[in-house]
Amino acid sequence: MSRVGIRELAAELGMSISTVSRAMNAREDVSAATRERVTAAAERLGYQPNQSGRTLRRGATGTVALVIQTNTARTEMGETFYFSLCDGLQQVLATKSLDLVLLPVGASADPDQYLVNAVDRHLADAYVVSNTHRVDRRIEYLTQRAVPFVALGRGGVSDHAWLDLDFEGVAAHSVARLAGLGHERIALASDDRDITSTFEFVRGYRRALAEHGLPTDSGWEIRVPDMPEGGAILADRLLAMSPRPTAVVLAQETLAIGLYRRLREAGVEPGSDLAVIGFRKNPVCDHLLPSLTSFEVSLDDYGRRLGEIVLGRLTPDCPDDQPVQEVWAMKIVPGESDAHPPREKAAR
Amino acid sequence: MSRVGIRELAAELGMSISTVSRAMNAREDVSAATRERVTAAAERLGYQPNQSGRTLRRGATGTVALVIQTNTARTEMGETFYFSLCDGLQQVLATKSLDLVLLPVGASADPDQYLVNAVDRHLADAYVVSNTHRVDRRIEYLTQRAVPFVALGRGGVSDHAWLDLDFEGVAAHSVARLAGLGHERIALASDDRDITSTFEFVRGYRRALAEHGLPTDSGWEIRVPDMPEGGAILADRLLAMSPRPTAVVLAQETLAIGLYRRLREAGVEPGSDLAVIGFRKNPVCDHLLPSLTSFEVSLDDYGRRLGEIVLGRLTPDCPDDQPVQEVWAMKIVPGESDAHPPREKAAR
Repeated sequence: MSRVGIRELAAELGMSISTVSRAMNAREDVSAATRERVTAAAERLGYQPNQSGRTLRRGATGTVALVIQTNTARTEMGETFYFSLCDGLQQVLATKSLDLVLLPVGASADPDQYLVNAVDRHLADAYVVSNTHRVDRRIEYLTQRAVPFVALGRGGVSDHAWLDLDFEGVAAHSVARLAGLGHERIALASDDRDITSTFEFVRGYRRALAEHGLPTDSGWEIRVPDMPEGGAILADRLLAMSPRPTAVVLAQETLAIGLYRRLREAGVEPGSDLAVIGFRKNPVCDHLLPSLTSFEVSLDDYGRRLGEIVLGRLTPDCPDDQPVQEVWAMKIVPGESDAHPPREKAAR
Repeated sequence: MSRVGIRELAAELGMSISTVSRAMNAREDVSAATRERVTAAAERLGYQPNQSGRTLRRGATGTVALVIQTNTARTEMGETFYFSLCDGLQQVLATKSLDLVLLPVGASADPDQYLVNAVDRHLADAYVVSNTHRVDRRIEYLTQRAVPFVALGRGGVSDHAWLDLDFEGVAAHSVARLAGLGHERIALASDDRDITSTFEFVRGYRRALAEHGLPTDSGWEIRVPDMPEGGAILADRLLAMSPRPTAVVLAQETLAIGLYRRLREAGVEPGSDLAVIGFRKNPVCDHLLPSLTSFEVSLDDYGRRLGEIVLGRLTPDCPDDQPVQEVWAMKIVPGESDAHPPREKAAR
């Protein structure tokens, strides 16, 4: 008797493979009745779930590669994101006997060419690419070559799987919070790379300014170099403005380190003279006083979810399933860095 | 005509392969006369250096793996060591068409078993293992299996290749510096893992105390958990002592972050009330005031040297060469954290 897989089960039930798959995984977008029908048929036909490592669409390596830039300000200031992500990711991959490797793209390498080389050398069966660009040659290349991949960050125009933090939502939430405190001149700071996270962050910022009827000024959208000194450069830009913004939201929270220092050198106190909100709650920023308001994400859970999506790309059973495209919500952790209304309001 | 390699060249000259190798590499421990003899013979015989990627003793992967722990205090506080090391390492490996992959050993994995699995799965042609222990099962396993490897950190009893930072020298230099300032009660702090770097650091500390005729106290050798809170625990231990040490040297510089904070909460000022010297100059500690005296290493150069040693392990031409075992010197970067003599001396 030939093996009864998900295709045979779907044919027997007259359902799509996608529906059967969702039912087998007890997804909530499938009715209880459908789930019961599928489960009963699976038992009756002796369905064998195609879930062992052996049946994944895998190449020779048995590895999944997480490709990371090692020449960013965050790696120089202290990387806590990727390493913290690894544990959950690795645990999920291990359930299918897959190993995780990190591919570090150094300062001297071209990220696009690096990825092309990695694929050509078959360094892994599947790839996770990070720091995605809106037009991303890596995503185009992986799609053309039909190499399984997940983008960590939106990007590209193809219909590919991605997982992303909620940059837009965090920026909008930050602006709303500052607006509620009475701030009217709110600046935005990001590094100067053309990556999708920056684009999303700017979008959320502009949307929230409009929603709250707050003024905009293109000069308030400040791009600073992707280096540890970026925060100090940001401070100089803000200090040179007249009238000065009373608050700033940071797309990269590590900018706060140099920002705080340079503001104080100029006699301007972060928090009370300039409200600051950072993106991700990052242990590297934990020493800052006033404590930085920022948004929390469980990198363990995020890594696990990333692992699940990767496994999905390596499981050829459900060809009609849409690639997962998921935005991951983050939770605010209020600090003291935005605890004050703007000085001009306070003085009234 | 058969290829004239290093063996044939050495036989012709009546020299050891090791000497010929060193002469070809223009090493300074070979006389100019010997270098000239070797060069002349190489030209005469049509010596073909066995240096292309193809002739390396490589397996199927074409990769070198750097195995790193991702659950240490340093990765949680912000990792700047391994990523910064990668660029130089990768550049050297690229000259032989080898790719670098990082293998992250997460919190939930047993480091020994992880390495055994990686080797059994042939994830790489050669391995760099870090956080070495004095008796290290990984080194024993790699040696038994004849897998090329380099230990980043001394360790094990076998005659293997290793590269290490000068933990002993830095600890001794730190104690000598504090002794010169008049400190007589000098504590040492390290994390509580039984790794060779800690052992070497303690050795340098004890040696320097003896050399300077300073008192010792086993209670002054403080081990704290390998977590971001370690520095605060260190502060509590120091504050509970009577008489209190007037200075502390840190085997892990990131301990300074929690140490500074907790000392201040107790009304004790780092620098003036307690002198502090950290191990490596680390960007993650750059925000500290008073600035932390620590020791600099060019991680680009260190990575390159590591790459050279890895290539040496993959080049089978020189079987009688001793494995490289090299301690890398570090250069002090004086800060303000040890700029004061002990209070009791200053008061006299």
